[in-house]
Amino acid sequence: MLGYALAMKPDAALELLDKFKIETPSWGYADTGTRFGKFFQDAAAGTIQEKLADAGTVHKFTGAAPSVALHALWDFGSSRELEANARPVIEEASKAGVRIGAINPNLFEDQVYKFGSACSPNPEARHTADRHVRDCIQYAKLTGSKTVSLWFADGTNYPGQDSIVARKRLMEAALKGWHEALVGDVELHVEYKPFEPAFYHTDIADWGMAYAFAKSAGPKAKVLVDTGHHLPGCNIEHVVAFLIDDGMLGGFHFNDRKYADDDLTLGSIDPYAVFRIFAAIVDAVEEDGAKLEDIGFCVDQSHNLKPKLEAMIQTVCAAQELFLKAALVDRTSLKLAQKAMDIVGAERCLVDAFATDVRPMLTEFRTSQGIAGDPLAAYRASGHAAELARLRGERNRAKRVGASYA
Amino acid sequence: MLGYALAMKPDAALELLDKFKIETPSWGYADTGTRFGKFFQDAAAGTIQEKLADAGTVHKFTGAAPSVALHALWDFGSSRELEANARPVIEEASKAGVRIGAINPNLFEDQVYKFGSACSPNPEARHTADRHVRDCIQYAKLTGSKTVSLWFADGTNYPGQDSIVARKRLMEAALKGWHEALVGDVELHVEYKPFEPAFYHTDIADWGMAYAFAKSAGPKAKVLVDTGHHLPGCNIEHVVAFLIDDGMLGGFHFNDRKYADDDLTLGSIDPYAVFRIFAAIVDAVEEDGAKLEDIGFCVDQSHNLKPKLEAMIQTVCAAQELFLKAALVDRTSLKLAQKAMDIVGAERCLVDAFATDVRPMLTEFRTSQGIAGDPLAAYRASGHAAELARLRGERNRAKRVGASYA
Amino acid sequence: MLGYALAMKPDAALELLDKFKIETPSWGYADTGTRFGKFFQDAAAGTIQEKLADAGTVHKFTGAAPSVALHALWDFGSSRELEANARPVIEEASKAGVRIGAINPNLFEDQVYKFGSACSPNPEARHTADRHVRDCIQYAKLTGSKTVSLWFADGTNYPGQDSIVARKRLMEAALKGWHEALVGDVELHVEYKPFEPAFYHTDIADWGMAYAFAKSAGPKAKVLVDTGHHLPGCNIEHVVAFLIDDGMLGGFHFNDRKYADDDLTLGSIDPYAVFRIFAAIVDAVEEDGAKLEDIGFCVDQSHNLKPKLEAMIQTVCAAQELFLKAALVDRTSLKLAQKAMDIVGAERCLVDAFATDVRPMLTEFRTSQGIAGDPLAAYRASGHAAELARLRGERNRAKRVGASYA
Amino acid sequence: MLGYALAMKPDAALELLDKFKIETPSWGYADTGTRFGKFFQDAAAGTIQEKLADAGTVHKFTGAAPSVALHALWDFGSSRELEANARPVIEEASKAGVRIGAINPNLFEDQVYKFGSACSPNPEARHTADRHVRDCIQYAKLTGSKTVSLWFADGTNYPGQDSIVARKRLMEAALKGWHEALVGDVELHVEYKPFEPAFYHTDIADWGMAYAFAKSAGPKAKVLVDTGHHLPGCNIEHVVAFLIDDGMLGGFHFNDRKYADDDLTLGSIDPYAVFRIFAAIVDAVEEDGAKLEDIGFCVDQSHNLKPKLEAMIQTVCAAQELFLKAALVDRTSLKLAQKAMDIVGAERCLVDAFATDVRPMLTEFRTSQGIAGDPLAAYRASGHAAELARLRGERNRAKRVGASYA
Repeated sequence: MLGYALAMKPDAALELLDKFKIETPSWGYADTGTRFGKFFQDAAAGTIQEKLADAGTVHKFTGAAPSVALHALWDFGSSRELEANARPVIEEASKAGVRIGAINPNLFEDQVYKFGSACSPNPEARHTADRHVRDCIQYAKLTGSKTVSLWFADGTNYPGQDSIVARKRLMEAALKGWHEALVGDVELHVEYKPFEPAFYHTDIADWGMAYAFAKSAGPKAKVLVDTGHHLPGCNIEHVVAFLIDDGMLGGFHFNDRKYADDDLTLGSIDPYAVFRIFAAIVDAVEEDGAKLEDIGFCVDQSHNLKPKLEAMIQTVCAAQELFLKAALVDRTSLKLAQKAMDIVGAERCLVDAFATDVRPMLTEFRTSQGIAGDPLAAYRASGHAAELARLRGERNRAKRVGASYA
Repeated sequence: MLGYALAMKPDAALELLDKFKIETPSWGYADTGTRFGKFFQDAAAGTIQEKLADAGTVHKFTGAAPSVALHALWDFGSSRELEANARPVIEEASKAGVRIGAINPNLFEDQVYKFGSACSPNPEARHTADRHVRDCIQYAKLTGSKTVSLWFADGTNYPGQDSIVARKRLMEAALKGWHEALVGDVELHVEYKPFEPAFYHTDIADWGMAYAFAKSAGPKAKVLVDTGHHLPGCNIEHVVAFLIDDGMLGGFHFNDRKYADDDLTLGSIDPYAVFRIFAAIVDAVEEDGAKLEDIGFCVDQSHNLKPKLEAMIQTVCAAQELFLKAALVDRTSLKLAQKAMDIVGAERCLVDAFATDVRPMLTEFRTSQGIAGDPLAAYRASGHAAELARLRGERNRAKRVGASYA
Repeated sequence: MLGYALAMKPDAALELLDKFKIETPSWGYADTGTRFGKFFQDAAAGTIQEKLADAGTVHKFTGAAPSVALHALWDFGSSRELEANARPVIEEASKAGVRIGAINPNLFEDQVYKFGSACSPNPEARHTADRHVRDCIQYAKLTGSKTVSLWFADGTNYPGQDSIVARKRLMEAALKGWHEALVGDVELHVEYKPFEPAFYHTDIADWGMAYAFAKSAGPKAKVLVDTGHHLPGCNIEHVVAFLIDDGMLGGFHFNDRKYADDDLTLGSIDPYAVFRIFAAIVDAVEEDGAKLEDIGFCVDQSHNLKPKLEAMIQTVCAAQELFLKAALVDRTSLKLAQKAMDIVGAERCLVDAFATDVRPMLTEFRTSQGIAGDPLAAYRASGHAAELARLRGERNRAKRVGASYA
Repeated sequence: MLGYALAMKPDAALELLDKFKIETPSWGYADTGTRFGKFFQDAAAGTIQEKLADAGTVHKFTGAAPSVALHALWDFGSSRELEANARPVIEEASKAGVRIGAINPNLFEDQVYKFGSACSPNPEARHTADRHVRDCIQYAKLTGSKTVSLWFADGTNYPGQDSIVARKRLMEAALKGWHEALVGDVELHVEYKPFEPAFYHTDIADWGMAYAFAKSAGPKAKVLVDTGHHLPGCNIEHVVAFLIDDGMLGGFHFNDRKYADDDLTLGSIDPYAVFRIFAAIVDAVEEDGAKLEDIGFCVDQSHNLKPKLEAMIQTVCAAQELFLKAALVDRTSLKLAQKAMDIVGAERCLVDAFATDVRPMLTEFRTSQGIAGDPLAAYRASGHAAELARLRGERNRAKRVGASYA
């Protein structure tokens, strides 16, 4: 094609796909919403048992979602006996057939965090945050998790509200302290976000700040890329390629967006952009010895309208399709064309891989693993959603009161 | 200056300022938040009585906020006896020394609105919305309000979710119906917003759609400009000037923003942009006979962190300062410079007005009206906030439970 | 699929594709660049003969680009004898096997346009613009063109520089005058753009302004959508659907972008977005009787780096692929799912059509018309580019001097 | 005020202002434009002598612009005898009464840079770039300049066009090599830009990349912040504060923007944002011992329409006004309010400083230095512009031909 012998290698691509696993988040099975309210679903999970069971269901239908990210505040008990809090969660996960993935502290919901957590001028907020993150490190140890994922809502809403520099130094100190408290091979993943819920400045506003903070914290601190946490136009695959090449990519929180942090399902708005992120990762794996299993691929969406389990299965499948297309890129021709400064020819290597209909390959791949070729259709056909609605509906409907925007 | 006899006219400017009144919204006195939670304030208003009282306090300290926008769902009783619902509100407003301003329906909070209100494929949602807006028109009549302000959260989250065109036609039909139901000189103000809470498409996404919908609804329908409802970079003063010139500007919802619909206090991020909006309005009043009193100037912010009453007083004062600066522009020199294509000279007319410190003028203006020269300082000195916290704190603290993001 | 009998109709889709013709612009064959300079190509066209010949080549290889948009300033002679100017162009077009499409005035290059054209405070600029557009209307008549495409660089760079309202009225008057001068079934297409080259305000900044101006000009004025002329995040397919439903869509200028008006080749950045625009158009054709041939589909890219002819062939093919995918959407299932408020099912109808590999269908479609299945590969194999470089190279290389950013 | 004894310190502020010097760029005196063309000015500078003379004029009228940034390609001769190239420039600068500031290589105008400079896959491009930057380092030594400012237009226009990672490594290697070649106390300032002229990816796209590249190059490499080189919404003062605190801020290229890299005059669009950048700098100077003279403050605007010298004088004055306001912030009250988490009170410290009319202070400051209180008015009154137009007009008008967009 265009002078190159364009040759995709399906077998190698499927081999790589086989190693591509996607973590789902416990909070992705619960009702979420916007500041204007929540639309409650009959089948939504309301307990950690239900969340883990739902994650198990997603893994059963997709075969590609073996682990679950946990949210410390919502998923563990509130006792100071951390081991006692962790035990039932570990047992339920095992029952549901899923591993425990990243541990996520909650540093925004308590009233004490009004002015921030690690960066708050309020020492009580900093103390509360510190203890909670240290608990999460212990939870990671107790549950066999390899990651503590740190998202800070810290920031300010008005110019002058607080000293940006003083807050920066508080963040540095906090991260260093937590890095010292790490045990075993647990890593700290530092997330960034340009705005929301802080609307003037966010203490970790972009990947550069997360990178600098992680560097100063220590070698087990990496950057976490949430695909929705960028200013308009940001070339995310560039950031990803840069971070991997510097050994600083921890992992992803996957979702899609059109405007701000819209938290839509992955690939629903701009699938070619997701494909390009995956192409950067495949590049690093194939060319530079990066290890796929060292990168955390976690979903983090806020399915406000789509049925929870459908949306999660759809997401896992979309990620697989786009990853497989990325793995199909004819890298030999690509490099030849790049070297020849043949723009159209080089671009075509990506375009041709993206244009390939990988659904038949995926159907075969899945059926060879004893999974339905179309997990979403199989899930729909199973009647599982109706069963969940029957079991959980009455309780969930009782919650549909009281929350009001103002 | 720069060849023109730059001459500001403080007396004329103050005369115009005297006609510039700002409406405050009842919901601006209650606790609001982000999707990640609310930070509750001891002094926040919890009832319509408290909201109206707080609006009265703002008017007492500023002398410039004589009316209150109401939110039909939150401020009126839920009985089908609309008159019975309206009576206590009218009485409380009168007690608080404020007039009743725009009536705002709520077309987003009820679970029936999951897929939209006027544009929903669900006929029950459309019916509920229809009845509610017709009630609001009655409330306008009953309370002497001149405006029903329509903000629709309607939209979709995913490509294909619904037919954009079918929804457009439903919106057209709904607006026409409501226009027909108008009584007296009540107007419909149609608001637009590019995104949030809908993240793929919003049925009235920009001023052009609001304009086309208003045109097709009828002569009493106008466009409502919320300063936070624009895509990045949008030149809002251009839109405002265009709308006034076409007789289609209904009014404003004031707030400031840096990223999305951040709902920060007016002028806190980009005061020169607010000044330019006011300059466009003064232009229309002075040059083309537009009437200031025909334009609704309403605050619509979501003060999540600032104390509610302080923030509102600060907002009213900021609006006055920026409006007064706009009224000080030497329009004669400006026109001469524009005609001479003297860019620097013309720009300087705006820059010089903006650079003027109008605080002394405002102090004099206020004291001549028996109001403290610095309303915010006077409010702080009054001890009113502490008193409110004492009265409302216990009840408000009891609400600080239960709400969770997921 | 997902409960619907998902059924694409390839024959109907190809029938529609057969009517989908793409106009290429004469200036797309010449060297263009950025403000930092041009990179000259040996094979670039330097005369109207060469441009028309190149357009003929693109049509020969694609079978889908039968007409050429002309730029009055660059393509016609400068004599006041318009007919004499037009005659050779008509003849060369005929020789090259292409029709003459939209006539584009140039209202930005002359020094007189420093402060604008139709909106300039300089009467000489307005007069020059007026005469030039009237000439273009004559050229349309003389060449059998159906469209005069109006893009205005008009705007201001600084707040206060000029009166936004005065300029609005000048634009209204100019458009009315030109509308009156229209002959036959020629239409005025009014383009909008948020910024560049004006950086404070652009006189026709968005579709809403173009819409209002076109409405006030008269029934033969429509809106022209350049896909690169929107603020970040704008939902273009929504705008397109809205315009078609109001009978106000004139046509398109196609290109892709990631940041601003990047003028990249169509579909190179976000192919799913282009697909959705086409889906909105197919929708209008299939559901509401819109006529595909009434919509002008014109390329308007600035291929600074890609070889000119390759880029144009690539663009035409990309447009066909994405249009065909859009035509494949199973509209019956889509409507059922939408009616059932089944978000995932409805979305899936679009996703499945987009995921379909249409290249084999296109190969068959083209070969049945005597065209190579892969036009780009066929063009590369033809040696035509090398031949053009041989013929034009020496002359073009001589131009590579003198231009400097500052 | 608001409970704090708000106390500005005008004397200290003016003392700091006295140290605040702004560099003007040689290319800011020449005609520039957009990709759609240039509007030529009779008085524009056409030679390095004229540029230096104009810089001298700006310094004479403002007293605050003692140095000139040079553009190696345009300002030095093309001989390989660098000393011979430098000598006349040094002499002319001395004659004009200005020092030589930052040396700027040109890595974008030559045809060899079609695919980039330091990152190009073309070894000849890399070699040319390498030699040119090394020449610039020599020019810095020869002219007594302390800075080589590196802006790279490097990037790609299409996904796949080149390997992002390979280019990253080329950039790292190039910067390391140049760092090694530095002599004396010359610094490398590494600039970043999200897009334009590259529209898919830019090799140094944001401050994080510039930071990482500078860190890896060596201790004399710092980050250069061009205020126009950010994605929409970016909080620039946050980036600035972060960089200073890490010892990584090299300096600024000043301009203002509303949309993209609009290159408007400083403070013309959002003066409060410029004030906040200065407030971050004053903060670092007053609180943390940062040295004002270690930060390069250079103008880099593209005054396409404003008269060149007027625009530059206006810019220098705007910078002084906004800097002085920032220096007036009552830092003691600010810190008290921040510590008390009093958002409105803390914000008010900034707002009050910004609201202060500093023009009288500046008039006094300037007249005490023997400079006119209103430099722009004085310049206009001087008749200098007319004299320049007389001297340079004929020659400049001769250039007004030939350049065409396409």
